[in-house]
Amino acid sequence: MSLPEGPGAWLLTIGNEVLIGRIVNTNAAWLGRRLTFMGFRVERVVVAPDEPEDVADEVRRALSRPSVKVIITTGGLGPTYDDRTLEAVAMALGVPLELNQEAYRMVKEKYDASGMPMTKEREKLAMMPRGSMPLRNPVGMAPGSLAEVNGRLIFSLPGVPAEMEAMFEQEVEPRIRPLAPKLAVVECSMLVAGVPESSLAPYIERAERSAPGLYVKSHPKGHEARGPIIEMRALASAPNHDEAASKAREALEVVRKAARELGGEASEVSC
Amino acid sequence: MSLPEGPGAWLLTIGNEVLIGRIVNTNAAWLGRRLTFMGFRVERVVVAPDEPEDVADEVRRALSRPSVKVIITTGGLGPTYDDRTLEAVAMALGVPLELNQEAYRMVKEKYDASGMPMTKEREKLAMMPRGSMPLRNPVGMAPGSLAEVNGRLIFSLPGVPAEMEAMFEQEVEPRIRPLAPKLAVVECSMLVAGVPESSLAPYIERAERSAPGLYVKSHPKGHEARGPIIEMRALASAPNHDEAASKAREALEVVRKAARELGGEASEVSC
Repeated sequence: MSLPEGPGAWLLTIGNEVLIGRIVNTNAAWLGRRLTFMGFRVERVVVAPDEPEDVADEVRRALSRPSVKVIITTGGLGPTYDDRTLEAVAMALGVPLELNQEAYRMVKEKYDASGMPMTKEREKLAMMPRGSMPLRNPVGMAPGSLAEVNGRLIFSLPGVPAEMEAMFEQEVEPRIRPLAPKLAVVECSMLVAGVPESSLAPYIERAERSAPGLYVKSHPKGHEARGPIIEMRALASAPNHDEAASKAREALEVVRKAARELGGEASEVSC
Repeated sequence: MSLPEGPGAWLLTIGNEVLIGRIVNTNAAWLGRRLTFMGFRVERVVVAPDEPEDVADEVRRALSRPSVKVIITTGGLGPTYDDRTLEAVAMALGVPLELNQEAYRMVKEKYDASGMPMTKEREKLAMMPRGSMPLRNPVGMAPGSLAEVNGRLIFSLPGVPAEMEAMFEQEVEPRIRPLAPKLAVVECSMLVAGVPESSLAPYIERAERSAPGLYVKSHPKGHEARGPIIEMRALASAPNHDEAASKAREALEVVRKAARELGGEASEVSC
């Protein structure tokens, strides 16, 4: 039951601005969706403050779980004094933070192209944990970084969504694809009206248990007693797309049949 | 530097739908903002799957940090088989999960009013860790719960935002207000254009260090080299509103002055 099996991934969002609610954590949702559809099992999202000790603790904790194969940090790679993610990764790995020559070239090339000189703050963008590999940022200035620990990968990406997304697609996805199971993941959905979630509950459980690799979830939208509307979603994984789609579809059909017997309405299933 | 001091708060978001990115974690942002402005220091947001062992681990971890005075969980209180948050809280506290008579009355009253009988799934909404207090849900069916451990408070709220928000205001805020410092928290903001973040960086640090209880943050919106636009925010806490506002305002004035000297533009500061 529950989340599809697959290699574990942890997402670590770094930044006080997320903790204080100034920024909604859309990065974690974006990454969670991409990783899930690739066949990874996203086991945690942790938002930590801009304090290297806290971030290092969280990296160590993720590494302490044998299921975790991929860790992605977002945020804290910029030029300001509070951008200390790579210092924290270095701390967690027990290696020094040092100027990475390849990262330095990437950064300098960008500033050169704009006729801007290198400064201490710009050089900071090229400071990386010893032994890590810089990742090209096609949108902004700060390179990302990849550290490997016994075959497990720690990617550090910027927090600006456009930079993070482009780097995930160009630098992360090709490197983690070989770790992902050869599975297709498909999500189907359906709306149910006129049946309280508490009445549908046993059928939702039955639907989820109808096959392995299924995650079935009810999202109540209306009021349980006064006009219940429930969005039903099923996420299924299988060796190919058609098999996954039919598994998800069949799970929702179990719920749809129950909804009708209970006097409610259900929309078509869409995948 | 960094986040305002204050009693520590941890937010624990429960639900696979958040991990897989189907739901963006707006609940954590809403709570983070409310708690911050009350004077709490939000130290972590953790999103955990619908597995009682994982959730219990996270509750225990929060309790293991002496700074943490308030823990708020959201999600996992509904009638379906995967709603297991209170089972996890009971596990973390080492007490049994049992039918809470007061919670049962709350739930039964709601279903009675709609002419709906109690069922196993509806009774489930009243199962709570032994010794915890049910919290009234003015919007939906599931009561929340409050457990106290040596003066530290663990609130469990539903994941539906309208329910969570109403319960925070009616049931949580009055109970945690006495723990909050007698401080006013004010946030001011300003836009800077035409100066790269890497050039502004030393002044941002200087601004933040200009007084205690200040958090100054740059949010780059444009491209570092081609037309940089930076939203600057300062969050300040002080014994009263005017003092906090002038502290935040003065911090941004440091940045504004620098931006002008560096050939850029800065908007008025708004608080």
